[in-house]
Amino acid sequence: MNPIVAEIPASLIRALHAKRKPTSLDMGLGEPSLMPDMRHFEQAMAWTRENGSRYAPNSGFQDLREAIARHYAYPGYGAGNVCITTGSQEAVFATIKALLDPARDEVLLVEPLFNVYDKIAQAEGVAVRRVDLGTESGCAFDADAILAAVTPQTRLIVVCSPCNPTGRVMNKTEAKKLAAGLLARCGSPVYVMHDEIYRELTFVDDFCEFGKMYPYTIAINSLSKSNALTGLRLGWLFAPSDVMAEIVKVHGWMTSCASTFAQRVALDIFATNDLAAQRPWYARQKDVALFAAREAGLEVIVPDGAFYLCVRVGVGLEEMVSFAESLVDECDVIAIPAHIFGSSLVGWLRTSFVGTPEDIREAYRRIAAHAKKYALLPR
Amino acid sequence: MNPIVAEIPASLIRALHAKRKPTSLDMGLGEPSLMPDMRHFEQAMAWTRENGSRYAPNSGFQDLREAIARHYAYPGYGAGNVCITTGSQEAVFATIKALLDPARDEVLLVEPLFNVYDKIAQAEGVAVRRVDLGTESGCAFDADAILAAVTPQTRLIVVCSPCNPTGRVMNKTEAKKLAAGLLARCGSPVYVMHDEIYRELTFVDDFCEFGKMYPYTIAINSLSKSNALTGLRLGWLFAPSDVMAEIVKVHGWMTSCASTFAQRVALDIFATNDLAAQRPWYARQKDVALFAAREAGLEVIVPDGAFYLCVRVGVGLEEMVSFAESLVDECDVIAIPAHIFGSSLVGWLRTSFVGTPEDIREAYRRIAAHAKKYALLPR
Repeated sequence: MNPIVAEIPASLIRALHAKRKPTSLDMGLGEPSLMPDMRHFEQAMAWTRENGSRYAPNSGFQDLREAIARHYAYPGYGAGNVCITTGSQEAVFATIKALLDPARDEVLLVEPLFNVYDKIAQAEGVAVRRVDLGTESGCAFDADAILAAVTPQTRLIVVCSPCNPTGRVMNKTEAKKLAAGLLARCGSPVYVMHDEIYRELTFVDDFCEFGKMYPYTIAINSLSKSNALTGLRLGWLFAPSDVMAEIVKVHGWMTSCASTFAQRVALDIFATNDLAAQRPWYARQKDVALFAAREAGLEVIVPDGAFYLCVRVGVGLEEMVSFAESLVDECDVIAIPAHIFGSSLVGWLRTSFVGTPEDIREAYRRIAAHAKKYALLPR
Repeated sequence: MNPIVAEIPASLIRALHAKRKPTSLDMGLGEPSLMPDMRHFEQAMAWTRENGSRYAPNSGFQDLREAIARHYAYPGYGAGNVCITTGSQEAVFATIKALLDPARDEVLLVEPLFNVYDKIAQAEGVAVRRVDLGTESGCAFDADAILAAVTPQTRLIVVCSPCNPTGRVMNKTEAKKLAAGLLARCGSPVYVMHDEIYRELTFVDDFCEFGKMYPYTIAINSLSKSNALTGLRLGWLFAPSDVMAEIVKVHGWMTSCASTFAQRVALDIFATNDLAAQRPWYARQKDVALFAAREAGLEVIVPDGAFYLCVRVGVGLEEMVSFAESLVDECDVIAIPAHIFGSSLVGWLRTSFVGTPEDIREAYRRIAAHAKKYALLPR
């Protein structure tokens, strides 16, 4: 067995999810509970009836890549700078593998951050540095803190905005400062992987499209969250041309090409500009969740986007996993111990607010009660 | 950039395919020209209307994994030994990454062999050994030759049967000998990756299901070739439980899970046992291609399965690529220089016989004529 792979733990999120019962109040897995718009599937069916189901070019259909390049309008990025991938997950993997030299390069993770970039970097033998934004500021993006953590070995910085798990966005002021600071550095460019998979689910005006500010941006996105299509596995990335050539090679070895059916679903979504239809629902859910968590007496990080709310339960590092496990076993609530996303979230849970308002209120009540009970347990 | 990735060449097959014109006689890309049966798509649509498009478990839906385990009935392999992947391509990548320790293990490629296993092994830093079956025997599988090439470092042997590019199958006699020889070795088990993606397209009775003979088989397959679904990206692998746990981890980092829509298409195909419907068409095509190539005066390797015919054009190693390029440019025929699949195929082309009989006949006439003309060129 590959020892580097063997020493990376399996997904705690999936392990907790496996404990799910039909009665569970599930705030665990990061996926929408809404249904997708089937009109896009009907279009893909009609196309498949005509054209069958043959390989697409490795980087994806030209018309889809053109539509995506046009929609986001990142300066300098045309259809040739877009690669269609099997979800954003494959985009992250292919980028890390293609871009980083394990013998020399470091990746800098801006945490709290979803815990898959670090696993992939580890699996690739790439050194990982971390900068944690800290709960004192509500995990606000801080360009100075990020720039201070850059070393001469840093070749890639990973930013997720809106952030999984905090829901915070990098605002334009900080983004400008970060871009200027990186451009002012000597030596090889530092790339920024801007994971914007939650960008359609943003509740503030100040979301920054980093690709419009910084030429070495690798923007990553998918239809999973905006269009309730986690199961479709359709994502994409933007990258500078020289990097793209290597990424497409790796992507070809990983999956050949993205599903042609999924690409036709995506083309219809872009053709009808149907990316933001579900945003108002998430904004209402966010308000319900915030109110309910505070009513239950839980400290929160106020999200700017996405569908996560981090709530403080105040347990120590060594008790985080057992707290989450007993929360499932004793209270039938699934929530994710958030220390896996960054050291400042020891004592916090990540909760997904995609359930009914009643379930959300009940889940936070149970979480708060369990935290109180847990604090009184003899150790 | 990752120097290991950078030094691996991009796909020559895709590069030649990019030269394709509407008039081209295309014997290049390895994909069916038939249409898929849309009834399976209709079933997947109905399911998606009811259930939406949410994540599947990392290893795939339980009912699909059960159906696949039941269908192939490999001894000792239940649903827990099946992982659904994004095409067989992802299955190959995840297996090599999870199973092999780059610091210690070697992979042994039984050539001629499709040239992606070596690229993935190289990208993973795994040492590659090769054993070439040789055209003298028509590239027949030879257990003694394979066993003689195994070293103490060999941890994985890759066999593709029916083989891309030769179409040869490993028959039961050789398979038994190979299994016995490997089981008689001391030390850690040697795994055999048995890529059986063309198994439904077999024209002989003596195809060996290696998973029924050898407990350390990693069997890889997909719907791409049997059901004209290259664009669906739906494959699977069988593996022993300990290996499977690591493979599923890597698969999760690569793509999370296979498309739920594609998995429902697959479930309907297994439920209706619709895997072999297109075989008779391929058997007829094989006869057409064999007759036409011989009529054109080309030496061939008689295939037992798949939809490839290797034909000899007799050019030297350094001229293989330019021959194929000039074949496109001057004769409007796309065929693949087969030396990329193994050293014994210097001087041969891989041709896919998925076109109309007229196109197949015309293509071999042009290939033979071009080979004659090429032989007379001043060098």
